[in-house]
Amino acid sequence: MFPMRIALAQVNPTIGDVAGNTDKALSFIDRAVEQGAELVVFPELSVIGYPPKDLLLKPSVIDQCAGAVDRIAQHVQSAAVIVGYPMRSRKPDGAPLHNAAAVCRDGVIVGHRFKHLLPTYDVFDEHRYFEPGRQVDLIDVNGIQIGVSVCEDLWAAGEHFERRLYHDNPINQLAAAGADLFINCSASPFVTGKHELRMAIMRELAREHGLPIVFVNQVGANDELVFDGNSCVVGPNGDVLAHAGDFQEDLLVGDVPLRRGGPSVPSRIETSREGVAAVYHALVLGLGDYCAKCGFDSAVLGLSGGIDSAVCACLARSALGPDAVTGISMPSRYSSDGSKSDAQQLAEALGVTYHTIPLEQPHQAMERTLEPYFAGTASGLAEENVQARLRGVILMSFSNKFGSLLITTGNKSELAVGYCTLYGDMAGGLAVLSDVPKTLVYEVARWINTEACPLFAACGGQPIPLDSIRKPPSAELRPDQTDQDSLPPYEVLDQIIDRYVEREQSVRQIIDETGYDGDLVQRFVRLIDRSEYKRKQAPPGLKVTGRAFGFGRRMPLAMRHEP
Amino acid sequence: MFPMRIALAQVNPTIGDVAGNTDKALSFIDRAVEQGAELVVFPELSVIGYPPKDLLLKPSVIDQCAGAVDRIAQHVQSAAVIVGYPMRSRKPDGAPLHNAAAVCRDGVIVGHRFKHLLPTYDVFDEHRYFEPGRQVDLIDVNGIQIGVSVCEDLWAAGEHFERRLYHDNPINQLAAAGADLFINCSASPFVTGKHELRMAIMRELAREHGLPIVFVNQVGANDELVFDGNSCVVGPNGDVLAHAGDFQEDLLVGDVPLRRGGPSVPSRIETSREGVAAVYHALVLGLGDYCAKCGFDSAVLGLSGGIDSAVCACLARSALGPDAVTGISMPSRYSSDGSKSDAQQLAEALGVTYHTIPLEQPHQAMERTLEPYFAGTASGLAEENVQARLRGVILMSFSNKFGSLLITTGNKSELAVGYCTLYGDMAGGLAVLSDVPKTLVYEVARWINTEACPLFAACGGQPIPLDSIRKPPSAELRPDQTDQDSLPPYEVLDQIIDRYVEREQSVRQIIDETGYDGDLVQRFVRLIDRSEYKRKQAPPGLKVTGRAFGFGRRMPLAMRHEP
Repeated sequence: MFPMRIALAQVNPTIGDVAGNTDKALSFIDRAVEQGAELVVFPELSVIGYPPKDLLLKPSVIDQCAGAVDRIAQHVQSAAVIVGYPMRSRKPDGAPLHNAAAVCRDGVIVGHRFKHLLPTYDVFDEHRYFEPGRQVDLIDVNGIQIGVSVCEDLWAAGEHFERRLYHDNPINQLAAAGADLFINCSASPFVTGKHELRMAIMRELAREHGLPIVFVNQVGANDELVFDGNSCVVGPNGDVLAHAGDFQEDLLVGDVPLRRGGPSVPSRIETSREGVAAVYHALVLGLGDYCAKCGFDSAVLGLSGGIDSAVCACLARSALGPDAVTGISMPSRYSSDGSKSDAQQLAEALGVTYHTIPLEQPHQAMERTLEPYFAGTASGLAEENVQARLRGVILMSFSNKFGSLLITTGNKSELAVGYCTLYGDMAGGLAVLSDVPKTLVYEVARWINTEACPLFAACGGQPIPLDSIRKPPSAELRPDQTDQDSLPPYEVLDQIIDRYVEREQSVRQIIDETGYDGDLVQRFVRLIDRSEYKRKQAPPGLKVTGRAFGFGRRMPLAMRHEP
Repeated sequence: MFPMRIALAQVNPTIGDVAGNTDKALSFIDRAVEQGAELVVFPELSVIGYPPKDLLLKPSVIDQCAGAVDRIAQHVQSAAVIVGYPMRSRKPDGAPLHNAAAVCRDGVIVGHRFKHLLPTYDVFDEHRYFEPGRQVDLIDVNGIQIGVSVCEDLWAAGEHFERRLYHDNPINQLAAAGADLFINCSASPFVTGKHELRMAIMRELAREHGLPIVFVNQVGANDELVFDGNSCVVGPNGDVLAHAGDFQEDLLVGDVPLRRGGPSVPSRIETSREGVAAVYHALVLGLGDYCAKCGFDSAVLGLSGGIDSAVCACLARSALGPDAVTGISMPSRYSSDGSKSDAQQLAEALGVTYHTIPLEQPHQAMERTLEPYFAGTASGLAEENVQARLRGVILMSFSNKFGSLLITTGNKSELAVGYCTLYGDMAGGLAVLSDVPKTLVYEVARWINTEACPLFAACGGQPIPLDSIRKPPSAELRPDQTDQDSLPPYEVLDQIIDRYVEREQSVRQIIDETGYDGDLVQRFVRLIDRSEYKRKQAPPGLKVTGRAFGFGRRMPLAMRHEP
């Protein structure tokens, strides 16, 4: 058997833009054919983009997708194309759609393959829309028997997970049916460390069956989810034979050997970023795509002089360019001189537009307005929140007036325990750091100042003032306040959050495994529960950990529970 | 066969409060046994409350539930009890839990029955947590073969729906296995008109199989969902033999005949409210339970003089009592005298606390603060929103200072097209009317003023000023503004919303079926799409229609779609 020349079309679709996504698919196909590709493979549901969510409930949208696949099929003559789309089930009962991959050639759709394993956990809701595929059949392309699977179908093997969620293993079934080659159309979102896991699973499967795997993943960000791309070809020996770029569109054409020992000529292999670098690029792509796909060409954010807003400003400059970013410092009577100068220094280093808007006038006016009703009460949270909310009013006015996205700068640690003000610092269109724990914010800040030099060459290489990184974090809503007046050290808090939120441990387990003070764990876990009402109204945030607040964590608000 | 004396324990559990819910279950069991019940039936998942959402992912919570069912089993000796709870699957693969009904007697659990049909649409996410039951087996209680099903298992028959979602029909299977009696443990949320449908389905099933059905539904509100109760017994001839109260806890004990022609003595039959009355009671229960279960004993809301805030004030007074409600009028330079006097008249009629807090001072201070940056731009939305957001700051200050729930007063029509200000009038903890279209708000207002007299006896029977009902609705954010400057008449807008949101019609279909102007339909449908980012950050709202914004409608934000 000769190798097969396959093109991995790692596209960044816009959700719902069926016509635009199809135009893009046609241009990728043309480029692939020019490079001699016999088969062009697109990601899961690439015609509509992943995740399309409840757009899938609109019959007219499903009709548009069917029309788009016809258009693609009619376009291709010399190569075969595999493209993902939502397809109406032909059965009279069950869920109305399949998560399908259509195989097109010679102007028509020659076959379909339906996703078997429908993830319905975390951010995934596939049983809401799709009927699982049950047939195991191969698709013949130029005499090669191709075993097509869709995303989760690759993840059935239980050994990497706490529990085997599925009863079947579609990859094993395709191998047993006599596949020469596995193709997997994916829309597998970024999570720190996940691509390493993907590669381990694919290498094992390839070696186990002695067959190559072509993995084509979506790239680009859609709301909370960033797709990292990282499409690749793993050879029958488990070697990586081709690897597309991460966090960008790519068209990777390679010759895929069809059995162990067959000719194996590695084609282009791009490096996949890991660790903090991957987080940084995921956040930049997440912010950039949210702006691009919502139609924002500028962003505004509050600059407090602290580390969260500094990191957000760097991300915004990287995603949108300096001319598109406005930073606003809104000092109150409690703001330190250091905070004001740190904010200004950052803005100057980044070359973004910068305003200082003192809060005192509206703050005083609001205090006078409320004074008759609050007389005799102790000043506290209500008064602190007024400042944060007046800042929200100012920032939203800029957003409304100039059509800029307001970037919410809070981190995951604050959001977890509600150390943030609803309609105040929580205001905004995208919470860029809401899945980044404070300890990781520090790592990202240090990475920006040390590793990201070429990105910030004009800033002298260290855009974030060292003072913003070194000084004790503070909300500066009352005199001499620091975060650690109310919170444990962030190393401890982030451990509690990781265990309670990501790992679903109980208070008892956390205490036993960490040795932390029992009252402290109990208090902050309860605070995490009780802050759910704030998170309910938080802007969408970019997911980078295994469990983000937001769409993938669905907690009741009115509840009473023994954690 | 003698009739069987069965107790329908229509309880209102608090989500996650396993210990408290179990205490309540034991007291219902004791009362039922006193009345000679042989069998006591609780709703679906009643030990943890429905919907428990991602609490189900916490192993410690599942352990607590198992312990609670053991406690219930040990408590009962003379009667059998059927109680719903999440139970760990004993299989090595598949979803980790079953949505189970345990049958307890003589101090032990004698059997389990797992839910077969797992709703995974709208507000339901059951495939996220549960493995479907597949066995069809009856449970023997005193020689009677009981066919136990859980909620959705009753709804398999396709004729009432557009599509048969399920391949099996558990009720038919139980009948074929030889059941003497159907028991259905439910947590079936309120939607206008749904109980009529439930009754039709149950009457048909009872008649078809010649067997009685005992339907035990949860009552009470949990976040967005209101459960109406309405538990009942339908005899083998399809007659209603017993019917519990709606929107309240109830323990209904009745003798259930076991075959067609058997002795049939109807026990207590309460009237089930319909139409606007049901909506009113659902909203009062929804608001009252949200407060009770979150620990609020008072509420605050802005009173604009308009109909939405007037209806909300009536609901709050009904749910919490006059002493627990504070209404705040915040007139701006654009507020009409009529609005101010209507707000005051309403507050006086309801006997709630009332403040007038003029907005002018903070409004001017904020204008002066922003003036240098907005100089030379035309006054528009940004300026209008400042007023709405300053009102939000004032109301949230009251909420924070006095620990009162801020009630968000906007209706579904506004929320649909984004005719509302994020962090302004959208601020609050519960959006009581967010699933009530404006035309239905008018009906509720008229119902309050005409039918609800006993509820508002102290208000002279017509608490809502007629002027609030009759005058053209206005946001009063600029001079002489009315809603219809920007929106079509609400009768038209609500038709468009119903067709696009609830029925998933396309623009083409709406135009064809209504004859509305094409540009108008296109414009407002696009406005619905484009306002998703506001709804993403909206407070939870009480669902009363077939499709509410919120948890049951999951739309992408960054998208471009041909509606």
